[in-house]
Amino acid sequence: MNAYPVFFVSDRTGLTSENMGNALLEQFIGIPFKRATYPFLDTPEKAHALVQIINQAAEQGTRPLVFSSVVNNEIRAIVTTANAFHLSFFDAFLGKLEEELNAPASHIVQSRVQNVEKYDARMEAVNFALNHDDGISDKDFQAADVILMGVSRSGKTPTCLYLALQYGIRAANYPLTPEDLDTDDLPRMVKNHQNKLFGLTIEPDRLHHIRQERRPDSGYASLKTCRQEVADAQAIFRRHRIPFANTTHKSVEELAVEILQACSLKRRF
Amino acid sequence: MNAYPVFFVSDRTGLTSENMGNALLEQFIGIPFKRATYPFLDTPEKAHALVQIINQAAEQGTRPLVFSSVVNNEIRAIVTTANAFHLSFFDAFLGKLEEELNAPASHIVQSRVQNVEKYDARMEAVNFALNHDDGISDKDFQAADVILMGVSRSGKTPTCLYLALQYGIRAANYPLTPEDLDTDDLPRMVKNHQNKLFGLTIEPDRLHHIRQERRPDSGYASLKTCRQEVADAQAIFRRHRIPFANTTHKSVEELAVEILQACSLKRRF
Repeated sequence: MNAYPVFFVSDRTGLTSENMGNALLEQFIGIPFKRATYPFLDTPEKAHALVQIINQAAEQGTRPLVFSSVVNNEIRAIVTTANAFHLSFFDAFLGKLEEELNAPASHIVQSRVQNVEKYDARMEAVNFALNHDDGISDKDFQAADVILMGVSRSGKTPTCLYLALQYGIRAANYPLTPEDLDTDDLPRMVKNHQNKLFGLTIEPDRLHHIRQERRPDSGYASLKTCRQEVADAQAIFRRHRIPFANTTHKSVEELAVEILQACSLKRRF
Repeated sequence: MNAYPVFFVSDRTGLTSENMGNALLEQFIGIPFKRATYPFLDTPEKAHALVQIINQAAEQGTRPLVFSSVVNNEIRAIVTTANAFHLSFFDAFLGKLEEELNAPASHIVQSRVQNVEKYDARMEAVNFALNHDDGISDKDFQAADVILMGVSRSGKTPTCLYLALQYGIRAANYPLTPEDLDTDDLPRMVKNHQNKLFGLTIEPDRLHHIRQERRPDSGYASLKTCRQEVADAQAIFRRHRIPFANTTHKSVEELAVEILQACSLKRRF
Protein backbone atom coordinates (compact mmCIF):
# COMPACT_ATOMS: atom_id res chain seq x y z
CA MET A 1 0.00 0.00 0.00
CA ASN A 2 1.34 3.42 -0.93
CA ALA A 3 1.65 5.75 2.03
CA TYR A 4 -0.80 8.63 2.03
CA PRO A 5 1.07 11.92 1.65
CA VAL A 6 -0.01 14.08 4.59
CA PHE A 7 0.45 17.86 4.68
CA PHE A 8 0.11 19.84 7.89
CA VAL A 9 -0.36 23.43 6.80
CA SER A 10 -0.44 26.62 8.84
CA ASP A 11 0.28 30.33 8.65
CA ARG A 12 1.74 30.05 12.12
CA THR A 13 3.82 27.31 13.76
CA GLY A 14 1.82 24.36 12.48
CA LEU A 15 1.49 22.92 15.99
CA THR A 16 -2.32 23.05 15.89
CA SER A 17 -2.60 21.37 12.52
CA GLU A 18 -0.01 18.72 13.47
CA ASN A 19 -1.86 18.12 16.70
CA MET A 20 -5.24 17.91 15.03
CA GLY A 21 -4.02 15.78 12.16
CA ASN A 22 -2.04 13.34 14.26
CA ALA A 23 -4.93 12.87 16.71
CA LEU A 24 -7.08 11.84 13.73
CA LEU A 25 -4.47 9.74 11.93
CA GLU A 26 -3.73 7.77 15.11
CA GLN A 27 -7.26 6.43 14.75
CA PHE A 28 -6.30 4.52 11.60
CA ILE A 29 -3.98 1.77 12.69
CA GLY A 30 -2.01 0.02 9.97
CA ILE A 31 -2.50 2.67 7.30
CA PRO A 32 0.84 4.22 6.31
CA PHE A 33 1.18 8.00 6.23
CA LYS A 34 4.07 10.16 5.07
CA ARG A 35 3.91 13.42 6.99
CA ALA A 36 5.28 16.86 6.17
CA THR A 37 4.67 20.17 7.93
CA TYR A 38 4.50 23.53 6.18
CA PRO A 39 4.51 26.27 8.81
CA PHE A 40 4.55 30.07 8.36
CA LEU A 41 2.61 29.87 5.09
CA ASP A 42 1.95 33.58 5.15
CA THR A 43 2.12 34.82 1.56
CA PRO A 44 0.12 33.88 -1.57
CA GLU A 45 3.43 32.96 -3.24
CA LYS A 46 4.24 30.37 -0.58
CA ALA A 47 0.69 29.04 -0.83
CA HIS A 48 0.90 28.65 -4.61
CA ALA A 49 4.26 26.89 -4.30
CA LEU A 50 2.76 24.47 -1.78
CA VAL A 51 -0.19 23.75 -4.09
CA GLN A 52 2.32 22.63 -6.71
CA ILE A 53 4.06 20.35 -4.23
CA ILE A 54 0.74 18.81 -3.17
CA ASN A 55 -0.32 18.33 -6.79
CA GLN A 56 2.96 16.62 -7.58
CA ALA A 57 2.41 14.26 -4.66
CA ALA A 58 -1.10 13.57 -5.95
CA GLU A 59 0.33 12.52 -9.31
CA GLN A 60 2.02 9.56 -7.59
CA GLY A 61 -1.42 7.97 -7.36
CA THR A 62 -2.56 8.41 -3.77
CA ARG A 63 -4.65 11.48 -3.04
CA PRO A 64 -2.88 13.54 -0.37
CA LEU A 65 -4.48 14.56 2.92
CA VAL A 66 -4.23 18.23 3.86
CA PHE A 67 -4.81 19.32 7.46
CA SER A 68 -5.01 23.08 7.48
CA SER A 69 -5.15 25.55 10.34
CA VAL A 70 -4.56 28.55 8.10
CA VAL A 71 -6.26 31.62 9.58
CA ASN A 72 -5.93 33.95 6.61
CA ASN A 73 -8.84 33.58 4.19
CA GLU A 74 -6.86 34.31 1.02
CA ILE A 75 -4.11 31.81 1.82
CA ARG A 76 -6.62 29.19 2.87
CA ALA A 77 -8.53 29.59 -0.40
CA ILE A 78 -5.34 29.06 -2.41
CA VAL A 79 -4.42 25.91 -0.47
CA THR A 80 -7.91 24.51 -1.06
CA THR A 81 -7.30 24.49 -4.83
CA ALA A 82 -4.75 21.68 -4.44
CA ASN A 83 -5.74 18.21 -5.59
CA ALA A 84 -6.19 16.67 -2.15
CA PHE A 85 -8.61 15.74 0.60
CA HIS A 86 -8.85 18.88 2.76
CA LEU A 87 -9.75 19.12 6.42
CA SER A 88 -9.70 22.76 7.41
CA PHE A 89 -9.91 23.49 11.04
CA PHE A 90 -11.12 27.08 10.76
CA ASP A 91 -13.62 26.33 7.99
CA ALA A 92 -15.19 23.64 10.15
CA PHE A 93 -15.53 25.60 13.36
CA LEU A 94 -15.09 29.33 12.99
CA GLY A 95 -18.45 30.08 11.35
CA LYS A 96 -20.34 28.16 14.01
CA LEU A 97 -18.46 29.93 16.76
CA GLU A 98 -19.16 33.34 15.18
CA GLU A 99 -22.86 32.51 15.28
CA GLU A 100 -22.78 31.37 18.88
CA LEU A 101 -20.81 34.40 20.07
CA ASN A 102 -22.71 36.71 17.75
CA ALA A 103 -19.42 38.39 16.86
CA PRO A 104 -17.16 38.35 13.83
CA ALA A 105 -13.82 36.55 13.97
CA SER A 106 -10.82 38.74 13.30
CA HIS A 107 -9.50 36.36 10.61
CA ILE A 108 -6.02 37.67 11.27
CA VAL A 109 -3.09 35.81 12.70
CA GLN A 110 -3.08 36.46 16.43
CA SER A 111 -1.13 39.44 17.62
CA ARG A 112 1.67 38.63 20.01
CA VAL A 113 1.46 41.47 22.48
CA GLN A 114 1.27 39.18 25.48
CA ASN A 115 4.37 37.25 24.66
CA VAL A 116 6.71 39.23 26.88
CA GLU A 117 4.70 38.26 29.95
CA LYS A 118 4.42 34.70 28.79
CA TYR A 119 8.11 34.60 28.02
CA ASP A 120 8.97 35.92 31.48
CA ALA A 121 6.81 33.31 33.20
CA ARG A 122 8.47 30.60 31.15
CA MET A 123 12.00 31.86 31.64
CA GLU A 124 11.46 32.10 35.35
CA ALA A 125 10.07 28.57 35.51
CA VAL A 126 12.81 27.15 33.25
CA ASN A 127 15.50 28.83 35.32
CA PHE A 128 13.85 27.50 38.43
CA ALA A 129 13.88 23.95 37.05
CA LEU A 130 17.51 24.26 35.95
CA ASN A 131 18.74 25.81 39.18
CA HIS A 132 16.81 23.43 41.36
CA ASP A 133 17.57 20.27 39.51
CA ASP A 134 18.47 17.66 42.09
CA GLY A 135 17.19 19.86 44.91
CA ILE A 136 19.43 21.97 47.02
CA SER A 137 17.97 23.97 49.86
CA ASP A 138 14.77 24.32 51.79
CA LYS A 139 14.42 27.86 50.49
CA ASP A 140 14.26 26.48 46.96
CA PHE A 141 11.46 24.16 47.94
CA GLN A 142 9.50 27.00 49.51
CA ALA A 143 9.35 28.76 46.16
CA ALA A 144 8.39 25.62 44.25
CA ASP A 145 4.89 24.88 42.98
CA VAL A 146 5.59 21.19 43.05
CA ILE A 147 8.47 18.91 44.08
CA LEU A 148 8.96 15.74 42.04
CA MET A 149 10.44 12.95 44.06
CA GLY A 150 11.88 9.70 42.75
CA VAL A 151 14.94 7.51 42.47
CA SER A 152 17.79 8.45 40.16
CA ARG A 153 16.75 8.28 36.46
CA SER A 154 13.05 7.92 37.11
CA GLY A 155 12.24 10.82 34.77
CA LYS A 156 12.17 13.82 37.08
CA THR A 157 14.22 16.27 35.03
CA PRO A 158 12.39 16.14 31.67
CA THR A 159 9.07 16.31 33.51
CA CYS A 160 10.19 19.39 35.48
CA LEU A 161 11.38 21.07 32.30
CA TYR A 162 8.19 20.27 30.45
CA LEU A 163 6.08 21.65 33.31
CA ALA A 164 8.15 24.83 33.15
CA LEU A 165 8.05 25.29 29.38
CA GLN A 166 4.47 24.26 28.78
CA TYR A 167 2.75 25.59 31.87
CA GLY A 168 5.15 28.02 33.56
CA ILE A 169 5.05 25.79 36.66
CA ARG A 170 8.02 25.99 39.03
CA ALA A 171 8.93 22.36 39.49
CA ALA A 172 11.79 21.34 41.77
CA ASN A 173 12.96 17.82 42.11
CA TYR A 174 14.24 15.67 44.90
CA PRO A 175 16.23 12.52 44.14
CA LEU A 176 15.63 9.75 46.65
CA THR A 177 19.05 8.57 47.77
CA PRO A 178 19.79 5.06 49.06
CA GLU A 179 19.88 6.59 52.56
CA ASP A 180 16.42 8.10 52.11
CA LEU A 181 15.13 4.76 50.92
CA ASP A 182 16.44 3.05 54.04
CA THR A 183 14.30 4.99 56.50
CA ASP A 184 10.58 5.14 57.18
CA ASP A 185 10.53 8.91 57.50
CA LEU A 186 10.24 11.41 54.71
CA PRO A 187 13.61 12.95 53.86
CA ARG A 188 14.29 15.88 56.16
CA MET A 189 14.47 18.38 53.31
CA VAL A 190 11.02 17.72 51.92
CA LYS A 191 9.26 16.97 55.19
CA ASN A 192 7.83 20.45 55.56
CA HIS A 193 6.55 20.50 52.00
CA GLN A 194 4.55 17.32 51.94
CA ASN A 195 1.58 18.95 50.17
CA LYS A 196 3.83 19.81 47.22
CA LEU A 197 5.24 16.34 46.75
CA PHE A 198 4.52 14.14 43.76
CA GLY A 199 6.28 10.82 43.30
CA LEU A 200 7.62 9.31 40.09
CA THR A 201 8.12 5.61 39.81
CA ILE A 202 9.26 3.40 36.96
CA GLU A 203 9.36 -0.29 36.11
CA PRO A 204 12.61 -1.86 37.40
CA ASP A 205 13.45 -3.40 33.99
CA ARG A 206 13.19 -0.03 32.33
CA LEU A 207 15.22 1.68 35.06
CA HIS A 208 17.88 -0.99 34.71
CA HIS A 209 18.04 -0.33 30.97
CA ILE A 210 18.36 3.44 31.46
CA ARG A 211 21.01 3.14 34.15
CA GLN A 212 22.97 0.62 32.09
CA GLU A 213 23.40 3.28 29.40
CA ARG A 214 24.80 5.60 31.99
CA ARG A 215 26.98 3.35 34.11
CA PRO A 216 27.21 -0.07 32.50
CA ASP A 217 27.46 -3.08 34.79
CA SER A 218 27.60 -1.02 37.97
CA GLY A 219 25.85 -1.92 41.21
CA TYR A 220 23.81 1.23 40.62
CA ALA A 221 22.52 -0.16 37.32
CA SER A 222 21.97 -3.76 38.42
CA LEU A 223 18.45 -5.10 38.14
CA LYS A 224 18.58 -6.07 41.80
CA THR A 225 19.33 -2.50 42.93
CA CYS A 226 16.69 -1.12 40.59
CA ARG A 227 14.04 -3.49 41.96
CA GLN A 228 14.91 -2.67 45.55
CA GLU A 229 15.01 1.10 45.05
CA VAL A 230 11.72 1.17 43.18
CA ALA A 231 10.02 -0.97 45.83
CA ASP A 232 11.38 1.26 48.61
CA ALA A 233 10.35 4.45 46.83
CA GLN A 234 6.81 3.21 46.28
CA ALA A 235 6.60 2.19 49.92
CA ILE A 236 7.53 5.75 50.91
CA PHE A 237 4.91 7.21 48.56
CA ARG A 238 2.23 4.93 49.97
CA ARG A 239 3.21 5.37 53.60
CA HIS A 240 3.09 9.15 53.36
CA ARG A 241 0.12 9.26 50.96
CA ILE A 242 2.11 11.01 48.26
CA PRO A 243 0.37 10.82 44.89
CA PHE A 244 2.60 9.18 42.33
CA ALA A 245 2.72 8.02 38.74
CA ASN A 246 4.59 5.37 36.82
CA THR A 247 6.62 7.01 34.06
CA THR A 248 7.32 3.80 32.12
CA HIS A 249 4.46 3.92 29.63
CA LYS A 250 3.57 7.58 29.82
CA SER A 251 4.61 10.50 27.72
CA VAL A 252 5.95 13.62 29.38
CA GLU A 253 2.74 15.36 28.31
CA GLU A 254 0.60 12.82 30.11
CA LEU A 255 2.72 12.96 33.25
CA ALA A 256 2.59 16.74 33.31
CA VAL A 257 -1.20 16.82 33.07
CA GLU A 258 -1.52 14.13 35.73
CA ILE A 259 0.70 16.15 38.08
CA LEU A 260 -1.28 19.34 37.48
CA GLN A 261 -4.47 17.47 38.34
CA ALA A 262 -3.12 15.69 41.40
CA CYS A 263 -1.58 18.86 42.84
CA SER A 264 -4.41 21.21 41.78
CA LEU A 265 -2.01 23.39 39.83
CA LYS A 266 -2.98 25.75 37.05
CA ARG A 267 -0.92 26.94 34.13
CA ARG A 268 0.79 30.27 34.84
CA PHE A 269 0.21 31.73 31.39
CA MET B 1 -20.19 41.28 29.89
CA ASN B 2 -20.12 37.93 31.65
CA ALA B 3 -17.20 35.77 30.64
CA TYR B 4 -18.13 32.71 28.62
CA PRO B 5 -17.35 29.56 30.58
CA VAL B 6 -15.07 27.47 28.36
CA PHE B 7 -14.50 23.75 28.90
CA PHE B 8 -11.65 21.90 27.19
CA VAL B 9 -12.57 18.24 27.45
CA SER B 10 -10.57 15.15 26.56
CA ASP B 11 -10.12 11.50 27.46
CA ARG B 12 -6.39 12.05 27.13
CA THR B 13 -4.21 15.03 28.09
CA GLY B 14 -6.48 17.75 26.76
CA LEU B 15 -3.64 19.31 24.77
CA THR B 16 -5.47 18.90 21.45
CA SER B 17 -8.72 20.39 22.71
CA GLU B 18 -6.88 23.27 24.43
CA ASN B 19 -4.93 23.88 21.27
CA MET B 20 -7.96 23.77 19.02
CA GLY B 21 -10.11 25.83 21.37
CA ASN B 22 -7.53 28.50 22.02
CA ALA B 23 -6.74 28.87 18.33
CA LEU B 24 -10.43 29.59 17.75
CA LEU B 25 -10.98 31.80 20.79
CA GLU B 26 -7.97 33.97 19.89
CA GLN B 27 -10.03 35.02 16.88
CA PHE B 28 -12.51 36.84 19.11
CA ILE B 29 -10.69 39.81 20.53
CA GLY B 30 -12.31 41.58 23.47
CA ILE B 31 -14.69 38.77 24.38
CA PRO B 32 -13.91 37.43 27.87
CA PHE B 33 -13.55 33.68 28.36
CA LYS B 34 -13.08 31.70 31.56
CA ARG B 35 -11.20 28.53 30.68
CA ALA B 36 -11.02 25.17 32.43
CA THR B 37 -9.50 21.91 31.22
CA TYR B 38 -10.88 18.47 32.06
CA PRO B 39 -8.33 15.86 30.93
CA PHE B 40 -8.43 12.07 31.36
CA LEU B 41 -12.23 11.96 31.16
CA ASP B 42 -12.19 8.21 30.71
CA THR B 43 -15.19 6.85 32.60
CA PRO B 44 -18.95 7.47 32.25
CA GLU B 45 -18.97 8.56 35.91
CA LYS B 46 -16.44 11.32 35.27
CA ALA B 47 -18.40 12.37 32.19
CA HIS B 48 -21.68 12.62 34.12
CA ALA B 49 -19.98 14.62 36.85
CA LEU B 50 -18.63 17.04 34.25
CA VAL B 51 -22.09 17.42 32.69
CA GLN B 52 -23.33 18.60 36.08
CA ILE B 53 -20.51 21.12 36.35
CA ILE B 54 -21.23 22.45 32.86
CA ASN B 55 -24.95 22.68 33.59
CA GLN B 56 -24.26 24.60 36.79
CA ALA B 57 -22.11 27.05 34.84
CA ALA B 58 -24.92 27.41 32.29
CA GLU B 59 -27.32 28.42 35.06
CA GLN B 60 -25.25 31.55 35.63
CA GLY B 61 -26.77 32.91 32.43
CA THR B 62 -24.06 32.54 29.75
CA ARG B 63 -24.16 29.36 27.70
CA PRO B 64 -20.82 27.55 28.10
CA LEU B 65 -18.58 26.57 25.20
CA VAL B 66 -17.35 22.98 25.15
CA PHE B 67 -14.35 22.02 23.01
CA SER B 68 -14.15 18.27 23.00
CA SER B 69 -11.50 15.94 21.66
CA VAL B 70 -12.97 12.88 23.36
CA VAL B 71 -12.22 9.77 21.30
CA ASN B 72 -14.51 7.33 23.09
CA ASN B 73 -18.03 7.37 21.63
CA GLU B 74 -19.87 6.66 24.87
CA ILE B 75 -18.07 9.37 26.82
CA ARG B 76 -18.53 11.85 24.01
CA ALA B 77 -22.26 11.16 23.86
CA ILE B 78 -22.60 11.83 27.58
CA VAL B 79 -20.69 15.12 27.35
CA THR B 80 -22.93 16.22 24.49
CA THR B 81 -25.98 16.12 26.78
CA ALA B 82 -24.66 19.11 28.72
CA ASN B 83 -26.41 22.44 28.24
CA ALA B 84 -23.69 24.10 26.16
CA PHE B 85 -22.44 24.97 22.70
CA HIS B 86 -20.43 21.94 21.61
CA LEU B 87 -17.58 21.81 19.12
CA SER B 88 -16.41 18.25 18.87
CA PHE B 89 -13.23 17.66 17.04
CA PHE B 90 -13.75 13.98 16.26
CA ASP B 91 -17.42 14.41 15.30
CA ALA B 92 -16.44 17.06 12.78
CA PHE B 93 -13.61 15.22 11.08
CA LEU B 94 -13.44 11.53 11.81
CA GLY B 95 -16.40 10.46 9.65
CA LYS B 96 -15.07 12.35 6.66
CA LEU B 97 -11.64 10.84 7.10
CA GLU B 98 -13.11 7.33 7.39
CA GLU B 99 -14.80 7.89 4.03
CA GLU B 100 -11.65 9.19 2.38
CA LEU B 101 -9.47 6.38 3.71
CA ASN B 102 -12.21 3.83 3.21
CA ALA B 103 -11.36 2.36 6.60
CA PRO B 104 -12.99 2.44 10.01
CA ALA B 105 -11.46 4.50 12.82
CA SER B 106 -10.51 2.51 15.89
CA HIS B 107 -12.45 4.88 18.19
CA ILE B 108 -10.18 3.87 21.00
CA VAL B 109 -7.70 5.99 22.85
CA GLN B 110 -4.35 5.56 21.16
CA SER B 111 -2.16 2.80 22.49
CA ARG B 112 1.17 3.98 23.80
CA VAL B 113 3.48 1.24 22.63
CA GLN B 114 5.81 3.67 20.91
CA ASN B 115 6.39 5.76 23.95
CA VAL B 116 9.57 4.06 25.07
CA GLU B 117 11.32 5.01 21.85
CA LYS B 118 9.90 8.50 21.96
CA TYR B 119 10.91 8.82 25.58
CA ASP B 120 14.46 7.71 24.80
CA ALA B 121 14.82 10.24 21.98
CA ARG B 122 13.56 12.96 24.27
CA MET B 123 15.70 12.00 27.23
CA GLU B 124 18.77 11.88 25.06
CA ALA B 125 18.01 15.29 23.60
CA VAL B 126 17.14 16.81 26.98
CA ASN B 127 20.33 15.43 28.50
CA PHE B 128 22.24 16.78 25.56
CA ALA B 129 20.76 20.25 26.04
CA LEU B 130 21.46 20.17 29.76
CA ASN B 131 25.01 18.87 29.44
CA HIS B 132 25.87 21.20 26.63
CA ASP B 133 24.32 24.33 28.03
CA ASP B 134 26.83 27.10 27.51
CA GLY B 135 28.91 24.97 25.18
CA ILE B 136 31.97 23.15 26.30
CA SER B 137 33.95 21.13 23.78
CA ASP B 138 34.24 20.62 20.06
CA LYS B 139 33.19 17.00 20.53
CA ASP B 140 29.88 18.22 21.93
CA PHE B 141 29.30 20.34 18.88
CA GLN B 142 30.03 17.44 16.55
CA ALA B 143 27.12 15.52 18.06
CA ALA B 144 24.76 18.50 17.93
CA ASP B 145 21.97 18.90 15.38
CA VAL B 146 22.07 22.66 15.78
CA ILE B 147 24.11 25.18 17.76
CA LEU B 148 22.29 28.28 18.99
CA MET B 149 24.56 31.27 19.25
CA GLY B 150 23.83 34.57 20.95
CA VAL B 151 24.82 36.98 23.70
CA SER B 152 24.15 36.14 27.33
CA ARG B 153 20.39 36.03 28.11
CA SER B 154 19.25 36.16 24.52
CA GLY B 155 17.01 33.12 25.03
CA LYS B 156 19.24 30.22 24.04
CA THR B 157 18.54 27.84 26.91
CA PRO B 158 14.72 27.67 26.82
CA THR B 159 14.85 27.34 23.04
CA CYS B 160 17.33 24.44 23.26
CA LEU B 161 15.20 22.70 25.86
CA TYR B 162 12.05 23.18 23.85
CA LEU B 163 13.71 21.77 20.73
CA ALA B 164 14.75 18.76 22.79
CA LEU B 165 11.40 18.12 24.46
CA GLN B 166 9.15 18.85 21.52
CA TYR B 167 11.21 17.52 18.63
CA GLY B 168 13.98 15.38 20.11
CA ILE B 169 16.51 17.72 18.48
CA ARG B 170 19.99 17.86 20.03
CA ALA B 171 20.54 21.58 20.44
CA ALA B 172 23.78 22.91 21.87
CA ASN B 173 24.37 26.52 22.61
CA TYR B 174 27.26 28.87 22.34
CA PRO B 175 27.24 32.14 24.31
CA LEU B 176 29.00 34.95 22.49
CA THR B 177 31.46 36.46 24.95
CA PRO B 178 32.67 40.06 24.85
CA GLU B 179 35.93 38.72 23.38
CA ASP B 180 34.07 36.91 20.59
CA LEU B 181 32.17 40.10 19.84
CA ASP B 182 35.40 42.05 19.48
CA THR B 183 36.74 40.07 16.54
CA ASP B 184 35.66 39.66 12.93
CA ASP B 185 36.22 35.93 12.92
CA LEU B 186 33.80 33.29 14.06
CA PRO B 187 34.70 31.98 17.52
CA ARG B 188 37.26 29.21 17.21
CA MET B 189 35.01 26.59 18.80
CA VAL B 190 32.16 26.93 16.36
CA LYS B 191 34.21 27.69 13.26
CA ASN B 192 34.12 24.11 12.00
CA HIS B 193 30.38 23.81 12.49
CA GLN B 194 29.19 26.82 10.58
CA ASN B 195 26.39 24.87 8.85
CA LYS B 196 24.85 24.06 12.24
CA LEU B 197 24.82 27.61 13.56
CA PHE B 198 21.68 29.60 14.18
CA GLY B 199 21.83 33.05 15.78
CA LEU B 200 19.50 34.50 18.38
CA THR B 201 19.20 38.21 18.78
CA ILE B 202 17.02 40.37 21.00
CA GLU B 203 16.04 44.03 21.32
CA PRO B 204 18.54 45.87 23.53
CA ASP B 205 15.80 47.33 25.78
CA ARG B 206 14.46 43.91 26.48
CA LEU B 207 17.94 42.46 27.08
CA HIS B 208 18.66 45.32 29.47
CA HIS B 209 15.46 44.52 31.37
CA ILE B 210 16.32 40.81 31.62
CA ARG B 211 19.91 41.42 32.71
CA GLN B 212 18.81 43.99 35.28
CA GLU B 213 16.81 41.26 37.01
CA ARG B 214 19.93 39.19 37.18
CA ARG B 215 22.65 41.69 38.01
CA PRO B 216 21.03 45.06 38.79
CA ASP B 217 22.95 48.17 37.80
CA SER B 218 25.98 46.26 36.55
CA GLY B 219 27.99 47.16 33.48
CA TYR B 220 26.79 43.84 32.09
CA ALA B 221 23.16 44.95 32.40
CA SER B 222 23.60 48.55 31.23
CA LEU B 223 21.64 49.60 28.19
CA LYS B 224 24.86 50.75 26.58
CA THR B 225 26.48 47.31 26.89
CA CYS B 226 23.30 45.61 25.70
CA ARG B 227 23.13 47.84 22.61
CA GLN B 228 26.76 47.24 21.76
CA GLU B 229 26.65 43.47 22.25
CA VAL B 230 23.48 43.05 20.21
CA ALA B 231 24.90 45.17 17.37
CA ASP B 232 28.15 43.19 17.41
CA ALA B 233 26.34 39.85 17.46
CA GLN B 234 24.14 40.79 14.53
CA ALA B 235 27.19 41.95 12.62
CA ILE B 236 28.77 38.52 13.14
CA PHE B 237 25.59 36.77 11.97
CA ARG B 238 25.43 38.91 8.84
CA ARG B 239 29.14 38.69 8.06
CA HIS B 240 29.16 34.91 8.23
CA ARG B 241 25.68 34.46 6.73
CA ILE B 242 24.33 32.75 9.82
CA PRO B 243 20.54 32.65 9.81
CA PHE B 244 19.15 34.35 12.90
CA ALA B 245 15.93 35.33 14.61
CA ASN B 246 14.91 38.03 17.03
CA THR B 247 13.52 36.44 20.19
CA THR B 248 11.88 39.59 21.54
CA HIS B 249 8.38 39.15 20.17
CA LYS B 250 8.41 35.45 19.47
CA SER B 251 7.24 32.51 21.48
CA VAL B 252 9.56 29.59 22.07
CA GLU B 253 7.25 27.54 19.80
CA GLU B 254 7.70 29.99 16.94
CA LEU B 255 11.45 30.17 17.37
CA ALA B 256 11.73 26.40 17.40
CA VAL B 257 9.79 26.01 14.16
CA GLU B 258 11.81 28.79 12.54
CA ILE B 259 15.05 27.06 13.52
CA LEU B 260 13.84 23.69 12.18
CA GLN B 261 13.01 25.36 8.88
CA ALA B 262 16.20 27.37 8.58
CA CYS B 263 18.42 24.40 9.41
CA SER B 264 16.36 21.79 7.51
CA LEU B 265 15.90 19.72 10.64
CA LYS B 266 13.16 17.18 11.20
CA ARG B 267 11.61 15.98 14.41
CA ARG B 268 13.28 12.85 15.75
CA PHE B 269 10.05 11.20 16.89
